[in-house]
Amino acid sequence: MTEARETITEGTAVAHNDMANAIRALAMDAVQAAKSGHPGMPMGMADVATVLFREALRFDAADPNWPNRDRFVLSAGHGSMLLYSLLYLTGYPGMEVGELKRFRQLGAKTAGHPEHGHAAGIETTTGPLGQGIANAVGMALAERLLNTRLGDDIIDHHTYVIAGDGCLMEGISHEAISLAGHLGLGKLIVLFDDNGISIDGPTSLTVTDDQVARFKASGWNAVAIDGHDPAAISAALAHARADSSKPWLIACKTTIGYGAPTKAGKASTHGEPLGEEEIKGTREKLVWPHAPFEIPEPVLLAWRAVGQRGAKERANWKQRAAQAGPHVDAALSNPAAAGKIADVAKAITTAKAAFAIDEAKRATRVWSQLALEKIVPVLPELIGGSADLTGSNGTRTKDHVPVGRGSFAGNYIHYGVREHGMAAAMNGIALSGGLIPYGGTFLVFTDYCRPSIRLSALMRQRVIYVMTHDSIGLGEDGPTHQPIEHLAALRAIPHLLVMRPAEGLETAECWEIALKHDANPSVLALSRQAVENLRKEASAENLSAKGAYVLSEPEGGRDVTLIGTGTELALAVEAAKALAGEGIRAAVVSMPSMELFRAQPESYRTKVLGDKPRVAVEAGIAQPWFEWLGTNGRFVGLSDFGGSAPAPQLYKHFGLTAAAVADAARSLVKK
Amino acid sequence: MTEARETITEGTAVAHNDMANAIRALAMDAVQAAKSGHPGMPMGMADVATVLFREALRFDAADPNWPNRDRFVLSAGHGSMLLYSLLYLTGYPGMEVGELKRFRQLGAKTAGHPEHGHAAGIETTTGPLGQGIANAVGMALAERLLNTRLGDDIIDHHTYVIAGDGCLMEGISHEAISLAGHLGLGKLIVLFDDNGISIDGPTSLTVTDDQVARFKASGWNAVAIDGHDPAAISAALAHARADSSKPWLIACKTTIGYGAPTKAGKASTHGEPLGEEEIKGTREKLVWPHAPFEIPEPVLLAWRAVGQRGAKERANWKQRAAQAGPHVDAALSNPAAAGKIADVAKAITTAKAAFAIDEAKRATRVWSQLALEKIVPVLPELIGGSADLTGSNGTRTKDHVPVGRGSFAGNYIHYGVREHGMAAAMNGIALSGGLIPYGGTFLVFTDYCRPSIRLSALMRQRVIYVMTHDSIGLGEDGPTHQPIEHLAALRAIPHLLVMRPAEGLETAECWEIALKHDANPSVLALSRQAVENLRKEASAENLSAKGAYVLSEPEGGRDVTLIGTGTELALAVEAAKALAGEGIRAAVVSMPSMELFRAQPESYRTKVLGDKPRVAVEAGIAQPWFEWLGTNGRFVGLSDFGGSAPAPQLYKHFGLTAAAVADAARSLVKK
Repeated sequence: MTEARETITEGTAVAHNDMANAIRALAMDAVQAAKSGHPGMPMGMADVATVLFREALRFDAADPNWPNRDRFVLSAGHGSMLLYSLLYLTGYPGMEVGELKRFRQLGAKTAGHPEHGHAAGIETTTGPLGQGIANAVGMALAERLLNTRLGDDIIDHHTYVIAGDGCLMEGISHEAISLAGHLGLGKLIVLFDDNGISIDGPTSLTVTDDQVARFKASGWNAVAIDGHDPAAISAALAHARADSSKPWLIACKTTIGYGAPTKAGKASTHGEPLGEEEIKGTREKLVWPHAPFEIPEPVLLAWRAVGQRGAKERANWKQRAAQAGPHVDAALSNPAAAGKIADVAKAITTAKAAFAIDEAKRATRVWSQLALEKIVPVLPELIGGSADLTGSNGTRTKDHVPVGRGSFAGNYIHYGVREHGMAAAMNGIALSGGLIPYGGTFLVFTDYCRPSIRLSALMRQRVIYVMTHDSIGLGEDGPTHQPIEHLAALRAIPHLLVMRPAEGLETAECWEIALKHDANPSVLALSRQAVENLRKEASAENLSAKGAYVLSEPEGGRDVTLIGTGTELALAVEAAKALAGEGIRAAVVSMPSMELFRAQPESYRTKVLGDKPRVAVEAGIAQPWFEWLGTNGRFVGLSDFGGSAPAPQLYKHFGLTAAAVADAARSLVKK
Repeated sequence: MTEARETITEGTAVAHNDMANAIRALAMDAVQAAKSGHPGMPMGMADVATVLFREALRFDAADPNWPNRDRFVLSAGHGSMLLYSLLYLTGYPGMEVGELKRFRQLGAKTAGHPEHGHAAGIETTTGPLGQGIANAVGMALAERLLNTRLGDDIIDHHTYVIAGDGCLMEGISHEAISLAGHLGLGKLIVLFDDNGISIDGPTSLTVTDDQVARFKASGWNAVAIDGHDPAAISAALAHARADSSKPWLIACKTTIGYGAPTKAGKASTHGEPLGEEEIKGTREKLVWPHAPFEIPEPVLLAWRAVGQRGAKERANWKQRAAQAGPHVDAALSNPAAAGKIADVAKAITTAKAAFAIDEAKRATRVWSQLALEKIVPVLPELIGGSADLTGSNGTRTKDHVPVGRGSFAGNYIHYGVREHGMAAAMNGIALSGGLIPYGGTFLVFTDYCRPSIRLSALMRQRVIYVMTHDSIGLGEDGPTHQPIEHLAALRAIPHLLVMRPAEGLETAECWEIALKHDANPSVLALSRQAVENLRKEASAENLSAKGAYVLSEPEGGRDVTLIGTGTELALAVEAAKALAGEGIRAAVVSMPSMELFRAQPESYRTKVLGDKPRVAVEAGIAQPWFEWLGTNGRFVGLSDFGGSAPAPQLYKHFGLTAAAVADAARSLVKK
């Protein structure tokens, strides 16, 4: 470790070391002030980040949302002080030094891990390891899609990632790397912080992967460099930028906690403050005599100059974009804001009209596909896909063109058997702006991508999960493929809209809801098995939008309310008919979305659910239903894993029948 | 594709082709009879499987549970007919031809995907892709652990896996491969069905990984062979068995649906019946003129001879094991049955006695570690570990010795940042028999390993998940690290015991429960922040075992019942004290496990919950609580993601306070 380097990089007279040490000092001081945090990574990667920001990254701190900026993703999100330091030093709006001083405090922009939306310049929320690199694959893919649509003059940027050992140990990294290599996303550059340390100690305890060889095996270019040698970093970045044939891994050998006199290179710098003594020693070792949070003016000015490096390029871009015409703005803005949703509404109306007179029994996954046939032509922003279940999910329509290596004019992604990578890539696509991603797999496999679904919700991104085969109704594939607890588990995630339409018209309505909600991800839970349309009239109103509504109200008032979702709504309808024959008046309520219903005024909820006993039916566990059953309500559902058999036999075997619903109703209705 | 090969392998006079074709015929006929299923993979891998079972696999069909058998894991579980055919052909008990005819029918042993426990010889439940290969890593690890404990004479076997493209695209495969390579599990041999086809079409649509290079990069030996050349398969297996320096990948180039005249090599053979015409053509092409499900006697006899190939070796083993002494039986049997749990009970009693007089405030993760200090010495079957959060999870005790490459005498696994791989490996360890695995990470990262947790529950395996930092009480790391919905999501999984102890004594009790339940996985949700012991007496009874109990009953009967779990139980206690000052008599109920409480008789539940209004408090969402709140109950909890700040501030900010609990109680108590 030499502290005496004096490499001067172009453009400023301030030494590289001083600029990198500014990051190191801010990181260790902020962590110390917060009494918690991760100083080691920012100190180790300060050299890499300094060269990246000074020389490579195209950005203008004054306009964090410039569509053609390079993206910078800190996948190793625990090193958040690296990002916050850079945002402050380069002058991002709102990132004052006070925010660094309030690191990890309530209400600060500087949360423990970078939270998208808390501060300008945080491209994505990271912390759960491996998510950032997989988001970046989505961003790099979105870049190619928009590049093809808008041309090199408008969209043509790189996506940079800093990833750590943890990111590369997580399984999601494989899905991300493999997909990026397959698609040849050559403008994706991953800087691996190869510091040889994880929380439990040296990484030799747990991992011996040859990362360079691993990335090459997945179709990447890969090199290893000294992550403390600015010239080597500079050369590697220049080389990677010049060769976009494949994505790049630059493995940067670094020392965690670089500069700390006794702790550098040790796990103890990873996740806790260095301590006053060690910080004092670090100041001495780095020749950084300045007070905590104090950046000498020349250094700060040099950094601010870096923040303005892209200003002229951005101005030129603005001009080009304006000249190119209004389609550019439209393509890069929120499709909801751009009025595109009005076209979607028309498409949905058309679909509902067609469905209302369609007497065929179809699975809701098929109704979904038919709805998409209407939506896709009017919403080119929509990027479809599936994790290798295209035909089963009904995610591809006749207007879809698949995307492939060197061929980004399409609007459909074959994500492969990579549910987690797909979901994280969709987050990246949504974050890129201007595009709406949806992707399919079986509902049971939401488990495989749950960490990314959670981040869709936490970041309030419009990502649409088309989750088919939503119950034991998938039949013979058996318990491993049958969701039982998944509706409950998904409904548990804040801000996620879980919609389980019962038939064709509801399915079209749920698509409209998913597309309109630009600050919520949605799950569409769709059936494998065919259902009849229960609504024969194409109401102008989107009935599903209130979450639940009265499908049928008996004359003379109700004795009991039967509530159903999805394919089980038909059981409620059938039970109501049987009960009517016995003089029991049952109202039937369809509840495609608990979240939307919960958001209604109490008066509406009371009106729909009524004041009579309630019976709910759903091919899932009871947990989410106690909220709606009222006093003495009954639930007809499941409490154990499914079985392997044809669907009708399973429904009978598990007691999910109209007769069971009717029995439950009878038991509740006072004679 | 040549159909005319006549390779004769040693030991029988029946041609390899006839034996392989028996598998092909059974697979296509069973799928046709079921009208659903996956014929392509069994037909493609029939040659590989035939050579494996005839020459390599050490097994005796008459004793499917022989501890020193080689393990065979069908990671590509959709090809279940490959496994069922082999079990039938080699004569596993209970696998009659009638079971093949009932493939995918209600109650058959032959579910759509292999279900552990349905039939002898199904080593693990597979279907969710990538799980099998990761289970196998756990099995191969368990083999090394038991080998070191019991010697080569007793445990020294291989673990074979058949994995498909899907398995190797899933992220979990990376975690598994990387861990196996790191540990040098040289007796693990993966046969990759490299058929170039996935559901959406040719794999060239989605993946271009060089699998041989990829595995080598993670420390494996790897070769590629023609998967239809018996001599090549034989040679590769022999070579791999002879060289246990590293795990082996044998990439077998195969044709999916091999033998089908028009569909072979196409995605259409993957997941649907071939159809009568194609089956007729296949019979002709394979020169297999026999009726469906009919195996000519010489072929069946040859296969049955394969099934008995290991009989003598097993008999010798039995003798060796008996001579070695009773410790062998004890080490290889269910630790609960072996009476080891009695020693655990004593250890727990000791721990509780010590905790009851310990006045320190400690996090429940620390109480857990202190309990483990007592348990680990008396239960060598316990294999601890953590996904790189050892210090945070408190999973390692002073009696732990870490396991590493070539060094398997230990009892602690540094799993690395591989939550999913850890959980699946733990399933494999539990399935191996004789060992009890536990592993730690943060509760929020149960999302990362949820598919494997589900399989622990579906397979009823005793796997213990030590999930710390179980609420916003983790503080500054912020929303990405704070579980909000995770207790609800985990409680949704059937057969999973979710336990959230409130203090030291409960923590010790929950460990006892987790260890005793040998047919349930458990989650221990443990706090980062310190709590006081609320129970000062070390009751002989395990109070937590009933799921909930009355911690304090006011004199003269209760006006309200306050229910809490984990660190929020203290809020209920504090609220009860405040209410007592106002003359409101509040009982406090601790509910460490809803599953255990639900299993109690109604009389007990009624007694505990009482007939007065109820208030529950938990740092999570309301969904699981409606079940317990009764009429007009109130819940004090969370409905949104957390924040980044010191824990006490977050509790206050989100209204999780004793004052809020008391307020809720006041609002419910009639004056």
